[in-house]
Amino acid sequence: MEWFNELKINEILSLFDLIGTFVFAISGALAASTKKLDLFGATFIAFVTALGGGTVRDLLIGSTPVGWMEDITYLTVILIAVGVTFIFYEHIRKLRKTLFLFDTIGIAVFTVLGLQKALLINIDPMIAVMMGMFSAILGGVIRDILINEIPLIFRAEIYALACIAGGALFIVLDNMGVGFEINAIITISIIIAIRILAIKFKIGLPKIIRNE
Amino acid sequence: MEWFNELKINEILSLFDLIGTFVFAISGALAASTKKLDLFGATFIAFVTALGGGTVRDLLIGSTPVGWMEDITYLTVILIAVGVTFIFYEHIRKLRKTLFLFDTIGIAVFTVLGLQKALLINIDPMIAVMMGMFSAILGGVIRDILINEIPLIFRAEIYALACIAGGALFIVLDNMGVGFEINAIITISIIIAIRILAIKFKIGLPKIIRNE
Amino acid sequence: MEWFNELKINEILSLFDLIGTFVFAISGALAASTKKLDLFGATFIAFVTALGGGTVRDLLIGSTPVGWMEDITYLTVILIAVGVTFIFYEHIRKLRKTLFLFDTIGIAVFTVLGLQKALLINIDPMIAVMMGMFSAILGGVIRDILINEIPLIFRAEIYALACIAGGALFIVLDNMGVGFEINAIITISIIIAIRILAIKFKIGLPKIIRNE
Repeated sequence: MEWFNELKINEILSLFDLIGTFVFAISGALAASTKKLDLFGATFIAFVTALGGGTVRDLLIGSTPVGWMEDITYLTVILIAVGVTFIFYEHIRKLRKTLFLFDTIGIAVFTVLGLQKALLINIDPMIAVMMGMFSAILGGVIRDILINEIPLIFRAEIYALACIAGGALFIVLDNMGVGFEINAIITISIIIAIRILAIKFKIGLPKIIRNE
Repeated sequence: MEWFNELKINEILSLFDLIGTFVFAISGALAASTKKLDLFGATFIAFVTALGGGTVRDLLIGSTPVGWMEDITYLTVILIAVGVTFIFYEHIRKLRKTLFLFDTIGIAVFTVLGLQKALLINIDPMIAVMMGMFSAILGGVIRDILINEIPLIFRAEIYALACIAGGALFIVLDNMGVGFEINAIITISIIIAIRILAIKFKIGLPKIIRNE
Repeated sequence: MEWFNELKINEILSLFDLIGTFVFAISGALAASTKKLDLFGATFIAFVTALGGGTVRDLLIGSTPVGWMEDITYLTVILIAVGVTFIFYEHIRKLRKTLFLFDTIGIAVFTVLGLQKALLINIDPMIAVMMGMFSAILGGVIRDILINEIPLIFRAEIYALACIAGGALFIVLDNMGVGFEINAIITISIIIAIRILAIKFKIGLPKIIRNE
């Protein structure tokens, strides 16, 4: 029974990992389209948006070749996402709310999977939480640098902080002996809840310069 | 006879690898000069333009210390290229056509050498082709980010696609049993031909937003 | 006596390594504040400013997990630096001269420590000097890219060159048999002196385009 549940949650996580990859790729392709890039530019930016976070995490922890190089599924999902964006551009743009929801599920799943991978090497839990957050957010950061914008998440929204809070909770529950499957579900739900509530109630972080 | 040919083609590839490095470094130094950077800035950008692609490839496949750190020739060639650009700036600028030709040879050679290096580790051929293309194009991408421009190759020209087409052909011929030396010559010729024809006939890629 | 001195200089170097990290983090937080980033953005940029150089060096030489992941002190120092900048923003801004002094000590110490780490693997001394310089300057380069500016050190000041000169001197003295502790003190002093003199006498590097 135990292994069955674990298998099931791992399969669900893998599925949402791919859905997150798909939605991140669309977000990259959409960002590229606003800058009038061509299909190669859009594909490249879709690619780094979807896989950039995990790539930096893998490089930092010394896990090479990095994850997506060993499983062609990621690349395939990204190419499909770019194709879908190219063909159904007008429809995709109208799906903002759906995309937002899957993007939020994506960062939550990326955080947990990144954290899990980082914990496999012997590092401080605080650094592992950071690796989880990096997995979720750095793709978007690199996307914004490539299209010559200051990364959006440096200016608006509780985004990375939701990942950090979720990651920290995961570590606490893990230390309390909560199994991975239950822990993953709780952590992912909390990250999603924090982000949605932060958006709903327009909760942001303060700036260093306050009177401007 | 066989080893003699192989030696010869490897020597020619090494030579064009260095010529490509030289021309990429000049392109970096020229780009830096348009932004009024000083000699250190120009050298730094020449350096990342010439070696950035191979560096990212080596990091991704886990080959460290990265290639240019083990052979001082690359660094020397780049310093000479910056010196030449500094002293003969006006002459260099007029050599656009020659530079374009060597740049094209450069991306073709970088693609084949990058692909060859990636195939040494056990990865999917599709990912290996990508590593070949990355070797050829990422230096220019990093150059453009450093001088605060959206990477040129995201907007204009068949450039990366020529490398991908050539790399895919290399894999096909390799599987058909074509030896490395012949395969390298064919692949390099095809990449050069695709790029030159694309420029000549102004063939570009479509954009996601079509009516703007 | 010998080991005692070595211990002492290593402790002093570690102290200045942390002071450098602290000052670099403040410089990152201040840069972020000029772009109206929020506290997360400021922390992220403080983090890459302080640790980006060492991170790239460690990735290039293949030393993973990278240094700061194995010692939580660095992250702690950066969080304190951001907190201090947030609370005492107006005071910090007035401390430009003090910050400049510690920044200069920082790049000198980072150069020597980066060089020392690079020499542990079997690479050309010229490349090791480069790794020392990268440790000192790349954090600031990444900071500037993230806030969408062309890196400052590509345009103004003898900065990287001071690190290169100091690093080269270190190698020469090391080959002459000068012990690490004495060598580190001399090298650090020279780097600090070159930078301060260059600022005082407004010595900069020439540009490639001279008549504009």
